[in-house]
Amino acid sequence: MAEKKIPYKIYLEENELPKKWYNVRADMKNKPAPLLNPGTLEPMKAEELEGVFCSELVAQELDNDNAYIDIPQEIVDFYKMYRPSPLVRAYCLEEKLGTPAKIYYKFEGNNTSGSHKLNSAIAQAYYAKKQGLKGVTTETGAGQWGTALSMACSYFDLDLKVFMVKVSYEQKPFRREVMRTYGASVTPSPSMETDIGKKINAEHPGTTGSLGCAISEAVEVAVKNPGYRYVLGSVLNQVLLHQSVIGLETKAALDKYNIKPDMIIGCAGGGSNLGGLIAPFMGEKLRGEADYDIIAVEPASCPSFTRGVYAYDFADTGMVCPLAKMYTLGSDFIPSANHAGGLRYHGMSPVLSQLYDDGLMRAVSVEQTKVFEAAEQFARVEGILPAPESSHAIRVAIDEALKCKETGEEKTIVFGLTGTGYFDMVAYEKFHDGKMDDYIPTDEELAEYRTHLPKVD
Amino acid sequence: MAEKKIPYKIYLEENELPKKWYNVRADMKNKPAPLLNPGTLEPMKAEELEGVFCSELVAQELDNDNAYIDIPQEIVDFYKMYRPSPLVRAYCLEEKLGTPAKIYYKFEGNNTSGSHKLNSAIAQAYYAKKQGLKGVTTETGAGQWGTALSMACSYFDLDLKVFMVKVSYEQKPFRREVMRTYGASVTPSPSMETDIGKKINAEHPGTTGSLGCAISEAVEVAVKNPGYRYVLGSVLNQVLLHQSVIGLETKAALDKYNIKPDMIIGCAGGGSNLGGLIAPFMGEKLRGEADYDIIAVEPASCPSFTRGVYAYDFADTGMVCPLAKMYTLGSDFIPSANHAGGLRYHGMSPVLSQLYDDGLMRAVSVEQTKVFEAAEQFARVEGILPAPESSHAIRVAIDEALKCKETGEEKTIVFGLTGTGYFDMVAYEKFHDGKMDDYIPTDEELAEYRTHLPKVD
Repeated sequence: MAEKKIPYKIYLEENELPKKWYNVRADMKNKPAPLLNPGTLEPMKAEELEGVFCSELVAQELDNDNAYIDIPQEIVDFYKMYRPSPLVRAYCLEEKLGTPAKIYYKFEGNNTSGSHKLNSAIAQAYYAKKQGLKGVTTETGAGQWGTALSMACSYFDLDLKVFMVKVSYEQKPFRREVMRTYGASVTPSPSMETDIGKKINAEHPGTTGSLGCAISEAVEVAVKNPGYRYVLGSVLNQVLLHQSVIGLETKAALDKYNIKPDMIIGCAGGGSNLGGLIAPFMGEKLRGEADYDIIAVEPASCPSFTRGVYAYDFADTGMVCPLAKMYTLGSDFIPSANHAGGLRYHGMSPVLSQLYDDGLMRAVSVEQTKVFEAAEQFARVEGILPAPESSHAIRVAIDEALKCKETGEEKTIVFGLTGTGYFDMVAYEKFHDGKMDDYIPTDEELAEYRTHLPKVD
Repeated sequence: MAEKKIPYKIYLEENELPKKWYNVRADMKNKPAPLLNPGTLEPMKAEELEGVFCSELVAQELDNDNAYIDIPQEIVDFYKMYRPSPLVRAYCLEEKLGTPAKIYYKFEGNNTSGSHKLNSAIAQAYYAKKQGLKGVTTETGAGQWGTALSMACSYFDLDLKVFMVKVSYEQKPFRREVMRTYGASVTPSPSMETDIGKKINAEHPGTTGSLGCAISEAVEVAVKNPGYRYVLGSVLNQVLLHQSVIGLETKAALDKYNIKPDMIIGCAGGGSNLGGLIAPFMGEKLRGEADYDIIAVEPASCPSFTRGVYAYDFADTGMVCPLAKMYTLGSDFIPSANHAGGLRYHGMSPVLSQLYDDGLMRAVSVEQTKVFEAAEQFARVEGILPAPESSHAIRVAIDEALKCKETGEEKTIVFGLTGTGYFDMVAYEKFHDGKMDDYIPTDEELAEYRTHLPKVD
């Protein structure tokens, strides 16, 4: 086994925890494009957004200038319950692969929500409470975000209404039950409780729902009920800001041992984990202080970076949300039914989209059976059962480590292990039983979805 | 919130990890009674036990003299992947309860097996590998032990056959799938693959199985197949030895901050977690160096300590295992179908039984709806979804903290949080839906089970 000067797990002390979030937009020369009012196509003003989002979160959403934003003490206290998360040296995986590469992963799954989503959930719940709101609404797909937000709302004694994509609601009753343990109400989407839900059910009888549809329902309920606002677990600038705690901890842990990564890899659905993980490293890159090879990994069945277009698009099916300029497949894109993991949103974070468009990071797509092969290999040697989402990053980390084996390069690879797969055993079962396939959308299908993009100059 | 000189989580450094297990039997004046051959009623000799168990584990089983036993480097290396586990100061729970008590819990759930069982699984797999065996067999009830052992066997490339209590096999397909991810073969018990399984199926058509029955099947397969041995996740002296790593870490973490606990609380089924957690503290107590109030918590529906008898009994339904002197309810005792959590074994670790009989610890039993109330309260403030088993200890820790609130005593309470409840959401759902009851066996029922105890002088 390799030299052990670096421990298996690098933990920061409590007093080494970040006190501020890092806002990468402050260091971007090309700022992410503003959100547009879907009616007027004018940039959304704070007062317009405040009907949907909490006021302080709107300020964070629009803040392209301040590089550091204080983390309120109440959130720091909550972070202390499950942070710092460990930065793990994957000695066993390295040995198994026989690679000269040094592999590290930042493990965000050691909390009851099972993923990094809690980092932003607690922040959004805190600001909602501070504003004196009664509660919040949201959507959830696989259930990670809903679980995280239910924990956060329970902690601050806020009411929470979750619209859960119907297919997940039915296939993942355990996720639903965890949310219930934390006091959330969970409704399968599309429901008959909202206008948009009724409309979608009428137009698509028997639909099993989508994230875009659940977002529309959650926004509708938030806007119609006084004392409620809508919160979102990814895509938004504010979410990437909160998630920067991942990258800041990662960088602090690496710095403790004078480790400089060559490559930083993260899975990307809406971009919350990747944006958080890379934030301080991208900051150095933007300021010309260091260079890193930064890689977004997405499913081949939902390839917004690698096969989408960079354009203004609707964020939701009901078209009630602001328009966002992002890499997108079109707002009515839904991955084929064989797609097992998360990472199924049609668009990508506007911040990451701009960075990608500026050539500051690259993207690769991977097919799901290859992802599950990597997941199982990782589980067996590193002793952690990874979420399918996280396993996209594992796949590429392994591939890059194997390249190093061929070339003899001793690259230092850091990847984000965003969560655990305890609630994804149906997908693992499919994989074990050989019932998983790798359907990828055709060029014709993607072109058809693109015809529905809004017309914006 | 209380003073914060003590961090939320006390982590040990990698070089502070225990290098030796502690064998509490070395300090016991009254040693646990020896295992008896069920035929001759003579104490089992090493060579008799070696047909069933790995040789080095037999030596550990019979070792009443050596206080410290080196942890092999290979096991230390594996421990480093998920240990040290955090000792958490339950600041949020204290605040919620408004108690002057200081509450700490040792959290063993932060590994993929989801519980402390991995501590002994990896040790047993290591010795099996070292002996050149092809594989091992075992039983599992709720699935924690089977999952842990599948991880351990995968790590050392050993074949593993698990007999899973049929009712769990059917109700917990996800646990089964995790074991499969780690390459184990899982058979519902009673099966038609063993003589004892066929016999039990014939005598009790439609039976949903029991731990005692699954043990018999696993032992039969181990004995009949060259190159295989049987391993067990609790009750045995060797298991408590391995689990002492929990208590040693706990004590090291407390010592770092000069904290002396007044009370140590653990749930008790077969006794593996409790025996491990209390080991070094009990050692001090046995040597007259310190005193602690040590409490075993068991389900009121399976009350081996509080309502059982201290006597020799069969360890399994098929009566193929050695007789053990222990607090027992009788080897054909099965908790009523409404019992949701684990902790369902009819007997108790011989080591703990002797310590209890000597008045060195006490025991309380709790009803399951009260346990789930504590579980939910804990989940909401401490952010960890606890296993039902672990929640027995939470219940009593909360009760003791509330007593302190009445008396004003600032007691320091340490309890063992053995695992997470991700695979127990069916039980949580029952609790939420008000479908959980608290059936407790009557005196008449318990008396009937006792008539089946073996006759041993």
